[in-house]
Amino acid sequence: MSVEEAKITASQEADPYSLGAGFNGTEIVPILEAQIPLVDMGFLHSDVCYDVVSVWKGSFFRLNEHMDRFERSYEGLGFSMPYTKEQMRQILIDMVARAGLRDAYVYMCATRGLPDLDDPRDMEKYHQCFYAFAIPFVWIVDPEDQKIGTDVIVSSVPRIPKESVDPTIKNHHWGDLTRADREARGKGAKTALLLDFDGNLAEGPGFNVFVIKDGKLLTPDDNVLLGITRLTVFDLAEEMNIEAKACKVPVETLRAADEIFMCTTAGGIMPVKSLDGKPVSGGKPGPITMKLREAFWKAHDDTKYSTPVNYD
Amino acid sequence: MSVEEAKITASQEADPYSLGAGFNGTEIVPILEAQIPLVDMGFLHSDVCYDVVSVWKGSFFRLNEHMDRFERSYEGLGFSMPYTKEQMRQILIDMVARAGLRDAYVYMCATRGLPDLDDPRDMEKYHQCFYAFAIPFVWIVDPEDQKIGTDVIVSSVPRIPKESVDPTIKNHHWGDLTRADREARGKGAKTALLLDFDGNLAEGPGFNVFVIKDGKLLTPDDNVLLGITRLTVFDLAEEMNIEAKACKVPVETLRAADEIFMCTTAGGIMPVKSLDGKPVSGGKPGPITMKLREAFWKAHDDTKYSTPVNYD
Repeated sequence: MSVEEAKITASQEADPYSLGAGFNGTEIVPILEAQIPLVDMGFLHSDVCYDVVSVWKGSFFRLNEHMDRFERSYEGLGFSMPYTKEQMRQILIDMVARAGLRDAYVYMCATRGLPDLDDPRDMEKYHQCFYAFAIPFVWIVDPEDQKIGTDVIVSSVPRIPKESVDPTIKNHHWGDLTRADREARGKGAKTALLLDFDGNLAEGPGFNVFVIKDGKLLTPDDNVLLGITRLTVFDLAEEMNIEAKACKVPVETLRAADEIFMCTTAGGIMPVKSLDGKPVSGGKPGPITMKLREAFWKAHDDTKYSTPVNYD
Repeated sequence: MSVEEAKITASQEADPYSLGAGFNGTEIVPILEAQIPLVDMGFLHSDVCYDVVSVWKGSFFRLNEHMDRFERSYEGLGFSMPYTKEQMRQILIDMVARAGLRDAYVYMCATRGLPDLDDPRDMEKYHQCFYAFAIPFVWIVDPEDQKIGTDVIVSSVPRIPKESVDPTIKNHHWGDLTRADREARGKGAKTALLLDFDGNLAEGPGFNVFVIKDGKLLTPDDNVLLGITRLTVFDLAEEMNIEAKACKVPVETLRAADEIFMCTTAGGIMPVKSLDGKPVSGGKPGPITMKLREAFWKAHDDTKYSTPVNYD
């Protein structure tokens, strides 16, 4: 047994769900036992859509919005799911309860699945699959580091255009995002912002981007995922009387920004402190960003957004 | 037990490898038992490269070229594989022998794999994985239908540009290809040819494309996989004194072609008989295409290309 295997075994003997729980298509199992068929088209052709929702202090945040978007995604791919939306929603809740997680990163996906053995060539007859997992909350940027701000670059890798792959159907086509992330780390930055082929801001690896100029919020309206955290920023901006607009954001506007922040379920609102090595908002998180960030985490206590988990 | 499960059980009781064999990262198992971890980044971020090689009449065809390309792919992604190239090559041979397949479609892939439990955020520390499977030979187009020719369309979906995802690293980013395939089937055609964003021919779902004009072969030099069957076409053309060139192929050149064929490991050289409903080469396979097709299958008997499987 390798050191790695010994560690896993020791950890799992104490509590098989200590690292999280997974749903393998039919049942809830410890995360490291959750497997999918090698020949699932969700893997072989990345013919899959997914969603990620968070659990904070024992409650899901905006679960209904995530389930609705997930439904639009799998319907957009022409999938017939083996479970109803309500059943899948319940599987997520049960999974978090089983793992006993109070703060969790909860992933779900729908795959094209497996061929019909009587007619294996007809893609329309494939048997779709639902998989999911829940692990302790994932921070793209550590909360302590968020108070300092993050160094990012503008990647030389352009985002896959929407004409080729629809970014509003949340998908696993991360090839460009992974290249951009590795480019950023190679340059000593934490992550990257990707542009479209016309030089307008698109999105980053797993997050949307907002620019603040003269007190107004701007975020790309095209070639991006319509993020739920992005939606929450619009909701909060309205409550706080801050003007916010989805529109084209040329790279020049990005470079001239007063403040920049990234936003995603896995980390919330994350201030940028430098772009390509040049300070943004004086090399520290901007004031409007930090006000929105505070309001974002406060919103997690708002019952209109929350679905409590029953851990009994 | 469902009818589907009953069929699988009956088939597997007779011979557990009747549907093929898979390699799950550590051992060879019946294909339907081959699984991968749900949290492998090869699935979650499609951070994976693959290759497909054929076995024909008990011998691999150009196995060394496929292994060399596979190596270039995983090295291009910065992977450290858990097996040597020679070990992976032997796993493929053992897998085909175990399944007892004389004619097989053999898939192998390398994934970014699983996080290091001590430092789960550092992508460079992930533990890479190798998976594979062998199933009875797959024909994208039935051999009998190949003698008639295939109806194809020019898809409205553009190929993912190489600046975003490198097509020479054979990858699972099939979103555009799947959309194009579904578009073709919706229009009553069999499959689709995709263009790049400049209106030049790129490739199709799982195959390269050749155009024949005035006795010369043309195939795209950019935004395509450097296919091994494509390479074999160049080799055969040279032997047959047919001029062949990799260059830009504008859609106008495609539409004015005397003959068109698709080529891939899973089907060989496949003549096109119509493009967007208009006949190509008189609505039947062209004469140069059929000569190349004959030479292609004859080449499978050439010992310089073949690696015999030991089935004992």
